[in-house]
Amino acid sequence: MKSSIKRYLIGRPLKSNELGEQKLNKTKALAILSSDALSSVAYGPEQILLVLVTIGAAAFWYSIPIAVGVLVLLLALILSYRQIIYAYPQGGGAYVVSKENLGVNYGLVAGGSLLVDYILTVAVSVSAGTDAITSAFPSLHSHNILIAVLFVLFITTLNLRGVTESASILAYPVYLFVIALFIMIGAGMYKIFTGQVTEALHSPIGTPVAGISLFLLLRAFASGSSALTGVEAISNAIPNFKDPAPKNAAKTLAAMGTLLAILFSGIVLLAYYYGISPNEQETVVSQIAESVFGRNAVYYFIQFTTALILVLAANTGYSAFPLLAVNLAKDKFIPRMFTIRGDRLGYSNGIITLGFASILLIIMFKGHTESLIPLYAVGVFIPFTLSQTGMILKWLREKPAGWRVKLAINATGAAISFIVSLMFFLTKFTQVWPVLVFLPLTILLFHRIKRHYEAVGDQLRIASCEAATPIEGNVMIVPVAGITHVVENSINYAKSLNADQIIAVYVAFDREEEKKFAEKWAKWQPDVRLVTLHSQYRSIIQPLTKFVDIVEHKSKEMNYRVTVVIPQFIPKEGWHNILHNQSSFLIRAFLLYRRDVIVTTVPYHLKK
Amino acid sequence: MKSSIKRYLIGRPLKSNELGEQKLNKTKALAILSSDALSSVAYGPEQILLVLVTIGAAAFWYSIPIAVGVLVLLLALILSYRQIIYAYPQGGGAYVVSKENLGVNYGLVAGGSLLVDYILTVAVSVSAGTDAITSAFPSLHSHNILIAVLFVLFITTLNLRGVTESASILAYPVYLFVIALFIMIGAGMYKIFTGQVTEALHSPIGTPVAGISLFLLLRAFASGSSALTGVEAISNAIPNFKDPAPKNAAKTLAAMGTLLAILFSGIVLLAYYYGISPNEQETVVSQIAESVFGRNAVYYFIQFTTALILVLAANTGYSAFPLLAVNLAKDKFIPRMFTIRGDRLGYSNGIITLGFASILLIIMFKGHTESLIPLYAVGVFIPFTLSQTGMILKWLREKPAGWRVKLAINATGAAISFIVSLMFFLTKFTQVWPVLVFLPLTILLFHRIKRHYEAVGDQLRIASCEAATPIEGNVMIVPVAGITHVVENSINYAKSLNADQIIAVYVAFDREEEKKFAEKWAKWQPDVRLVTLHSQYRSIIQPLTKFVDIVEHKSKEMNYRVTVVIPQFIPKEGWHNILHNQSSFLIRAFLLYRRDVIVTTVPYHLKK
Repeated sequence: MKSSIKRYLIGRPLKSNELGEQKLNKTKALAILSSDALSSVAYGPEQILLVLVTIGAAAFWYSIPIAVGVLVLLLALILSYRQIIYAYPQGGGAYVVSKENLGVNYGLVAGGSLLVDYILTVAVSVSAGTDAITSAFPSLHSHNILIAVLFVLFITTLNLRGVTESASILAYPVYLFVIALFIMIGAGMYKIFTGQVTEALHSPIGTPVAGISLFLLLRAFASGSSALTGVEAISNAIPNFKDPAPKNAAKTLAAMGTLLAILFSGIVLLAYYYGISPNEQETVVSQIAESVFGRNAVYYFIQFTTALILVLAANTGYSAFPLLAVNLAKDKFIPRMFTIRGDRLGYSNGIITLGFASILLIIMFKGHTESLIPLYAVGVFIPFTLSQTGMILKWLREKPAGWRVKLAINATGAAISFIVSLMFFLTKFTQVWPVLVFLPLTILLFHRIKRHYEAVGDQLRIASCEAATPIEGNVMIVPVAGITHVVENSINYAKSLNADQIIAVYVAFDREEEKKFAEKWAKWQPDVRLVTLHSQYRSIIQPLTKFVDIVEHKSKEMNYRVTVVIPQFIPKEGWHNILHNQSSFLIRAFLLYRRDVIVTTVPYHLKK
Repeated sequence: MKSSIKRYLIGRPLKSNELGEQKLNKTKALAILSSDALSSVAYGPEQILLVLVTIGAAAFWYSIPIAVGVLVLLLALILSYRQIIYAYPQGGGAYVVSKENLGVNYGLVAGGSLLVDYILTVAVSVSAGTDAITSAFPSLHSHNILIAVLFVLFITTLNLRGVTESASILAYPVYLFVIALFIMIGAGMYKIFTGQVTEALHSPIGTPVAGISLFLLLRAFASGSSALTGVEAISNAIPNFKDPAPKNAAKTLAAMGTLLAILFSGIVLLAYYYGISPNEQETVVSQIAESVFGRNAVYYFIQFTTALILVLAANTGYSAFPLLAVNLAKDKFIPRMFTIRGDRLGYSNGIITLGFASILLIIMFKGHTESLIPLYAVGVFIPFTLSQTGMILKWLREKPAGWRVKLAINATGAAISFIVSLMFFLTKFTQVWPVLVFLPLTILLFHRIKRHYEAVGDQLRIASCEAATPIEGNVMIVPVAGITHVVENSINYAKSLNADQIIAVYVAFDREEEKKFAEKWAKWQPDVRLVTLHSQYRSIIQPLTKFVDIVEHKSKEMNYRVTVVIPQFIPKEGWHNILHNQSSFLIRAFLLYRRDVIVTTVPYHLKK
């Protein structure tokens, strides 16, 4: 039953050689990998205005030069990541680039912050989308957390179904959102050019403003840059593209950059011309849409697609996280299970981990994840900076044709990203300090995990000189709980293996019982030696372990191996198990982990 | 570490022969077994007034004759249970009495309702006590559920420490409560006799009241009887008493009955004389205390001990539930695990189950468990009625000396209990109907469990004619994942057992890898046959199971037994396990439950 629910939710398992069919074409890739970046235009321009409004509405014209700065950064990032895509076509993005050019620890800083960042992306964007939806339907407001969790579960299931299927479903909302914003920007611009918008709404560009400072402008710039989170996703996900993967990825990246630039600058311009001031009750995009259209069907269409894309922005995390995890796991910095493809050929452990972690965050923050946004922006710009710096070193080292131009591009990207990261630390330290705690801890953990894997590998490798101890004979211990078919079955099995010695062990709770059992046994199995142990503390494991220890000690001297043969009856129905004291499970786990004995379970299947 | 926390919380394990020291003397037994009954005087009289107030304050004098009725019922119950104690000194109360005299199903009705009832006792009384405490400290009010859960955990831990220890700790609050109420009743009566209370406060007894009906009076009587819940606890817990257990239990029962009668009638009288009217904001006991003392230290002392005893009333459930569960488990109606004594000689599984279930109820009802009170009262009076009826039949059958008096006592008890139960169904059907659903389901479950145990017993019993199939030889299958020391270890073990055939099985995910491995294997272990399986769906279990099926099928024909030998390395630290794909666990569980093969785990302990 469990498996048929699984089938229904995620579909039939796919064969390994069907992997090719799970690859993305450009249209789908754009939809699924850019939802995060595109959705951030819904709040990026607002972030700029929120900083400027502290000086006054007269300062709003600064949003134009700041937006230009953001566009320059965007251009630098897109060009840099384009170079990264061609240079590292196997994917991995910032992690691989930093690791190979700057060293392992820089790679881990980039990888660790991105890993955490994707979890934040999912939590933050689903919470934001849920807020947008419940604002429209206030009666749902008290169920915010539940709705957000259901969204995460939905997106997780979609991704478990496989990359192409989730892309097919998610493509519609993403393109609808782009169309909606295009309509809004087009109509808004038309009104401006046809003179329907009065000049009085905005102060002209260049108006001197009292109280403006470079610090404030840089802060506004850093805030606006949060619209660029998500542009690295494509470089992590190259292996998901149809062949030729790098070329398709580069084209998709260019398309995304263009869309992002148009939407971002369009919204900034409209906000400026229409004199929009950010306020608590209504988002900037909503205000623009209302100014342009009034509250008609188009307005609601724009609001609806915006809410939708905020939720679906989470999906970018689902595309990038598992692939980044594979890269880290291949290098043994995180558990190996992340490298295994699930039934539908997606890296299901990564997908499930991401879903689980973001649900945890949503519940911990009770759905109010806005305070995580700066943390999340820093987590993006640190790897941006590192990967660009890595590329600089690469060009300096390799000096391919035209390396000067390439270096210039990456150097610009690195410099601006570095400044943005710095700005976050300078202007929002109270919100971003956790990075300084968690990042070192994460890297420490990565190293400990790797050290463990290497130690295990060394010990298992057959080349190592340690010779196997010869086995001269076998002692079998059979714990018995009564005179039953289950026990008979196990004793017969032990006999059939021609062990050098078979010892049945009975743990008794009182002396009377002990004597009686010994007598019965002598009649039933006269040729099998019985040892009875008295348990003062009503524990079976303790006296048994003590006995096993003694036998093992003796056996070691003679190079005998000790096997504990556990009789176990298997009930016909699974639920029957709760009706039986599963001492055998405890005994097995205890002996396997704590003692060097072999544990054999002889099942006796009940028929009713 | 885990075990040292356990030691700290519940103390060192006790030897089985230390059981005698865990028995209760009368003073302690009274404290721990009567907290439920005594605490109910805090709300019993109020329940009567709440019914009468629907007619008007003039009807309050009826509380006096109703209280007399309750006292008669109390006397009948105490005398009946006294007879039960002597007749069934091994404990078990209503369950045993009904089962032996009326038949198994009546016993199960009594046992089932009491079992559920003790869970309700714990949930209801802890919630009520928590409410009383948070009423005093309103800032804690939003943490009601958490506080209630912590109380349950505290009482559970106390009971896991053992009966005598919890009795020692709980004796103080119980006796403090009794002293507090004695002071209040004494002072209140003194004021009445010295004429400090005006006659105008209450209407004289016998005043005619319009609208009064027999139905209403019976309803008030039934409500007042809820003060008698908990009187059966002592009869369930006789085995916990010091020798001579039945005599000590009977004396304790008499003491409890006396205390209960004094406190109950005292509160009813004071409420009548002081003209107390029940209201939402303040309990009746609080109003009496205020009338007698004003809001001074004595008042707060009374309030505090009342709150405390409400919480501790839960403890009665902890004394009675595990012992009742033992009786049901011995008769195989509930899982056998309830018969096992824990480290501290208490029946820890019963204690933990009770704690867990009541926490669940508290969380489900968000701490508002008042609505469960009628359910809980019905759950007490049904077994009351059944056990008294059982005793009637016993006297009629056995006719011992003086049986007529004994029969009269039990008949009175049975009749009144029956009327009270009926009244609950007639007057509060909307709150008590779940009993009619859950009780039959519970009894059905009891029977299914018993049937299962009996079926298992039949199949295991060696006397049954089924002869064991002879074992003519052994085939050993070793799933191998690589050429490592772990595998070498397992292969050497299989060889040492002189199995008739050893087959190594390798599951490959691609053809290339498959070929390479086969070549390497042939060089490394030329004398062990290797079978490689190709897995299209990246599953190890599926192809392996298929292969095991084939081998098993062939082996059965020749009476060979199949053993799957699983190589498993055991990391040095427990947490390392999450770093390794524990396929071996899955394989073992799957093969053991689904297939009839023996599973052997050969551990290879890593040293670093």
